[in-house]
Amino acid sequence: MTVKLFDRVALIGIGLIGSSLARVLRRDSPGTAIVACARRAETLDAVRRLGIADEATDNPAAAVAGADLVVVATPLSAYAEIGARIAPALADGAIVTDVGSVKGAAIQALQPLLPSRVHFVPGHPVAGTEHSGPESGFAELFRDRWCILTPTPETAPEAVAKITALWQLAGMRVVTMVAEHHDKVLAVTSHLPHLIAYTIVGTATELGSDLQSEVVAYSAGGFRDFTRIAASDPVMWRDIFLANREAMLELLQRFSEDLTALQRAIRRGDGDTLHEWFTRTRAIRRSIIEAKQA
Amino acid sequence: MTVKLFDRVALIGIGLIGSSLARVLRRDSPGTAIVACARRAETLDAVRRLGIADEATDNPAAAVAGADLVVVATPLSAYAEIGARIAPALADGAIVTDVGSVKGAAIQALQPLLPSRVHFVPGHPVAGTEHSGPESGFAELFRDRWCILTPTPETAPEAVAKITALWQLAGMRVVTMVAEHHDKVLAVTSHLPHLIAYTIVGTATELGSDLQSEVVAYSAGGFRDFTRIAASDPVMWRDIFLANREAMLELLQRFSEDLTALQRAIRRGDGDTLHEWFTRTRAIRRSIIEAKQA
Repeated sequence: MTVKLFDRVALIGIGLIGSSLARVLRRDSPGTAIVACARRAETLDAVRRLGIADEATDNPAAAVAGADLVVVATPLSAYAEIGARIAPALADGAIVTDVGSVKGAAIQALQPLLPSRVHFVPGHPVAGTEHSGPESGFAELFRDRWCILTPTPETAPEAVAKITALWQLAGMRVVTMVAEHHDKVLAVTSHLPHLIAYTIVGTATELGSDLQSEVVAYSAGGFRDFTRIAASDPVMWRDIFLANREAMLELLQRFSEDLTALQRAIRRGDGDTLHEWFTRTRAIRRSIIEAKQA
Repeated sequence: MTVKLFDRVALIGIGLIGSSLARVLRRDSPGTAIVACARRAETLDAVRRLGIADEATDNPAAAVAGADLVVVATPLSAYAEIGARIAPALADGAIVTDVGSVKGAAIQALQPLLPSRVHFVPGHPVAGTEHSGPESGFAELFRDRWCILTPTPETAPEAVAKITALWQLAGMRVVTMVAEHHDKVLAVTSHLPHLIAYTIVGTATELGSDLQSEVVAYSAGGFRDFTRIAASDPVMWRDIFLANREAMLELLQRFSEDLTALQRAIRRGDGDTLHEWFTRTRAIRRSIIEAKQA
């Protein structure tokens, strides 16, 4: 199906998510002009080489001029500067959305900078791989995954409807929720798992170099799944953890208590506690398979 | 290629590993008779239905009678009883091997019970999925993975050579190392990752039921990889953690220190520490990809 939801889309940030969205638009909305904006010259070169945008620029204000949709898809720490630079150049009635993983921080950074003549629809397509950069994108990235929109009380319903249609075009299931709730849910389903994976891979790399090569060789026993997650973009994840600080710290507290309880069971040879715990965790896997998210 | 390394193989325990090995023998060594031994009637029924063994019995002594190879492939906590039951029935010159994930404990449990007229080759094919039971096995499970043999000073080199050939038939790369060293390496590459995955999935399931359904829905952001690992067999993993207690407790100590350091960085807004850590962990993923274990 080909449609045209927008005339001109500015993608501020063209990494895994931005470039995947560009590919979706190329495929399903050929009438839409795409402008890609990135800070680094190599990234812009890659965009041109890949042919995923009609224009490529390092100037956010130039990118958004005349666009009826602006998608902010950079690490969270760049939001404030981007907001300041694009605000004066935004077209009347344009929709600004973003794809950041922490919605409270995204709203705090962008909302105060955007003029009232544009619509802001904070969003988070929950999809990704451990790869980053425009080369790693693909249109099918979003297929059957969830996109969470977190409109504020000021967001116009028509703008939410258009962003909903955009992500549905990409194959996503779209829901809305309050930003604060989103950040709590994602802390569990995404942020804590990433921090734990980063931790364990770091622990393993400090074990001395002779053991390290064996850790690599025998990683198939479970470790390699963690290394995949711990290969995710360092800047993006630094920003996520700092932006979702409160939810992270509370969850880390719970996690540490639980780990200490299992550690205690191992020390005491308490097999019943371990067995009961492991049986319970097995059940949640079944729920995920039933929800078709496996 | 079809060969015949053994005339009669007794598989004591016919879960994921045992049944996968049976499928390898069926495919590549059709002249070998296979006897499967399991405690539960359902398991024996499944073996008969699947046609992966020539005989199926719940009696370990009967299973090993006349076998020139015995493979112990049960959870570690069953080893002592199995050793006691099979010892009197083992044929002269038979080779006994096992597939347990903790070699120190495997040797401690079996070695004292086995008569000197048989050869004991402790082994660990490092391969698996989160599924268990005879239905979940497949011959390709072992392809290109490592198998670690941990012969004791008493193990005859010819017996090691025959077990090496067996796992090579299954497509594995075979190495030998000292049992204690194996247990340290596997604590990092497999046992700690499993315990952490069990912990985090347990932490998430205790968050209250309304949040829980959302955790399932939005699990694609990283959590689902942990749920896969945390769906592994509860009895097998209970036994592994208890059997590799010392190595686990030492590693857990290191892991907790590292997690506390990252938690402290999040609390203080110390982005540099986080970024430096995440950049380092990214590198090890590349090593794993280069080692073709990804």
